[in-house]
Amino acid sequence: MVAPIRFGIMGCADIARKICRAIGLAHNATVVAVGSRSADKARRFIADNGLPENTHVHGSYEELLEDPAVDAVYVPLPTSLHVHWAVAAAGKGKHVLLEKPPALNAAELDRILEACEVNGVQIMDGTMWMHHPRTAKMRELLSDPDLFGQVKRTNSIFSFNGDSDFLKNDIRVKPDLDGLGALGDAGWYCIRSILWANDYDLPRTAIAFPNPVKNEAGVVLSCDASLHWEDGRVATFHCSFLAHLTMDLTVIGSKGTLQLNDFIVPIEQKSAHFTFASGSCFDDLVDSWTTFPKKHVVSTDLPQEALMVSEFSSLVAAIKESGAKPDHKWPTISRKTQVVLDAVKTSLDSGSKPVQIAF
Amino acid sequence: MVAPIRFGIMGCADIARKICRAIGLAHNATVVAVGSRSADKARRFIADNGLPENTHVHGSYEELLEDPAVDAVYVPLPTSLHVHWAVAAAGKGKHVLLEKPPALNAAELDRILEACEVNGVQIMDGTMWMHHPRTAKMRELLSDPDLFGQVKRTNSIFSFNGDSDFLKNDIRVKPDLDGLGALGDAGWYCIRSILWANDYDLPRTAIAFPNPVKNEAGVVLSCDASLHWEDGRVATFHCSFLAHLTMDLTVIGSKGTLQLNDFIVPIEQKSAHFTFASGSCFDDLVDSWTTFPKKHVVSTDLPQEALMVSEFSSLVAAIKESGAKPDHKWPTISRKTQVVLDAVKTSLDSGSKPVQIAF
Repeated sequence: MVAPIRFGIMGCADIARKICRAIGLAHNATVVAVGSRSADKARRFIADNGLPENTHVHGSYEELLEDPAVDAVYVPLPTSLHVHWAVAAAGKGKHVLLEKPPALNAAELDRILEACEVNGVQIMDGTMWMHHPRTAKMRELLSDPDLFGQVKRTNSIFSFNGDSDFLKNDIRVKPDLDGLGALGDAGWYCIRSILWANDYDLPRTAIAFPNPVKNEAGVVLSCDASLHWEDGRVATFHCSFLAHLTMDLTVIGSKGTLQLNDFIVPIEQKSAHFTFASGSCFDDLVDSWTTFPKKHVVSTDLPQEALMVSEFSSLVAAIKESGAKPDHKWPTISRKTQVVLDAVKTSLDSGSKPVQIAF
Repeated sequence: MVAPIRFGIMGCADIARKICRAIGLAHNATVVAVGSRSADKARRFIADNGLPENTHVHGSYEELLEDPAVDAVYVPLPTSLHVHWAVAAAGKGKHVLLEKPPALNAAELDRILEACEVNGVQIMDGTMWMHHPRTAKMRELLSDPDLFGQVKRTNSIFSFNGDSDFLKNDIRVKPDLDGLGALGDAGWYCIRSILWANDYDLPRTAIAFPNPVKNEAGVVLSCDASLHWEDGRVATFHCSFLAHLTMDLTVIGSKGTLQLNDFIVPIEQKSAHFTFASGSCFDDLVDSWTTFPKKHVVSTDLPQEALMVSEFSSLVAAIKESGAKPDHKWPTISRKTQVVLDAVKTSLDSGSKPVQIAF
C-alpha cells in the first residue's frame, strides 16, 4: 500500500473548495497543509472544508513551499501568478497541480514546464473533464475507423452568464489577474475539447472572429474563433461570460457524429451521457431517419475532479516511490492547448488576421 | 367547403415523390397533372406514385402551364431552371411552390418574385421544417423574454455523406444545374435556421471560412461561414456533402438555450423533440447543474411537407376564392435567405473577405 500523496493547497480561491473535497475523495491523496496570504484565511478554509485540525496552516505561499510534509501543491491562484509560484514550487521539489489556464501564454508555460522538468516533478493542469470515464468512452468511439471514420468538423461552445458581481469583481475580468478573460477560462475548455477530438493534432491556423466583446479594461468577455488544419478539417468555438449556460461539443466524422451538451461539468455527477450516431441516413422519402443516434450513459462513483487528483497522485507516487520520470503526456497536452490559445489571442489582437500555429 | 387546390408537378425529380405524397396528404390539395420533358416519364411517375389514372400527362413543361385545370405548380427542377419556369408559371397565372434554393442569386429571385407579384400569384419556397408544429413551439419559447431573453449566438450544421454516385452525378454537384452546391442545398437550411432564430433580423456581414472544399468543376462540396450583426450577435454554420449526417441547431440567449439535432428532417415522422434550458446554473461546488435542460416533444399527424403544402394551399385558396392578395411573409423570408446566401457566396469567391449584407 503506497502512502497517499500529501497536498498543500496554495490559496483559498472558490475553486479550491472543490479540489479540496476531491483530494479527500481520491484514494491516494490527502490534504496536509493550506497556505494563504493570511494565516487566518487558511485557518478558516480548513474549518469550512472540514479538514483535520492538525492540517498545517501557512500564512504565506513561501512558507507552504518550505513545508517538508507537502509532496504536491494545488495552485488555484490567478493566472498572472502561476509562472512565479509554479516555478517556485518546482524549485522546492513540489509536484504541481495547476489550475487552468496554466499560464498567460506559451512562453510563460515553458518556464513552468522547464522548472518541473529540471526538478523532476510532475505537472498537470486542472482540466477536470479529461478524467471523466465518459471521456475515455467517447475517445474509444472516435478512434473506431468503422464507426466514426475521420474527423471532419468540430464545434465547441462554453458560455455562462456572469452576474453583475462576477462582471465587476471576478479575477477573470481583471487585466492584471486573469487577463485572458473568457478566452483563458471558457475558451481553454473549448480549445482543449477541439484538440482532444482531433487526437491532439495541432491545427495550422487560428482565425478569431472580428469584434469580440471586451470590458472597459480590455478583457475579453465573449469571443469566437475558427481553427484550420492542412487537410481541410475545421473547428469553431465560442466562449462567453455573457450568455446562458451552454457546453456543447459536436464532433462530426466521415461516418459518425458525437454530441454532448455538458462536456465540462456533467449535468449529473454520477451519471453522464453523450450521443453517438453512426451510419445515419434517411428513409426513402427523406422524411425520417433510418438509424437513430444512440444515447450512451457512463457512470462514475467519484466525480471527475477526484479522478483527476487520483491520476495526478498516481504519477507523483510513481516518481516518489519508484523513481519514475515525470509523465510528459499531460504537460504536452497543456502546452498544445496554450499554443492554440496564444494564436487565437494574437488573431484577436490583430483584427482577425489568420495566425499560424507553431508548436 | 373550399375545393382543393389543384397541383401540377413540374418535373419528376426524386424529391417530387415526397411532395406528391404530401399533396395527397394535405386536406386542401390534390395532384391533377404531371409534366415532364417526356410524356412517358410523366406517365411512369403517375403510376409509381399511385396517382389516379385520369391525372393529366404533359410531355413538356409548357404544356403543363397551359393546363387550365392546374391552379398551382410544384417546381423541383434544378435551380438554374427556376427563374425561367417560375416566371413562366406566374405568367400563366399559376401559383408557385418552388424547391429551395429558389434561385441562384437574389437578382434571379427578384425576377421570380416580381413576376408573381405582377400576376397576383402566391409563391413559397420548399423549406419544409418551417411548417412543423415543433418550429412554432420553439418560436414561442425563443420569443419569451423571461425564459430565453435576447439571442446571442446561433450555430447551425447540416452535413450528410454523398456517396460516390451522388458526388459524380447529382444535380447538386453540377455547375450548370445546382451550381451553388452544398451552400445552396445544405447551406440554405442553415442560413434559414439562423435567420429564423434571429427573428429574420438580417446580419450585417457574412464571412466565409477560407479553403472551402470544391469538386473539379468548382462546385462547393463543403463550406463554413460566420454571420455578424451590428449589436454583436454572431452565428456560424457548416454545410457539407462530405461528412456524416448531422443537423444541429443551437440558439443561445441571455437566459436560455434551445437545441435540436434534427431540425430539417425530424428523426421520427410523427413525434419530434427539442431541448430547451432556461436559467441553468451550477451547484455550489460546480460539479453538477441545478436546472436540467428540458426535453419537449411535439407530435404531428401529418409530416411537415404536408403541412407546408396545406399552408401554401390555404394562401392560394384565399386568393382564388376570396380575392385576397398574395401573402408576403414567405417570399420575404425566401429573399432574406437568398440575400445572406449571396453574401456568403461572394465572400467564398473573394477569399473570405467580409461582405456587407444589403436587403
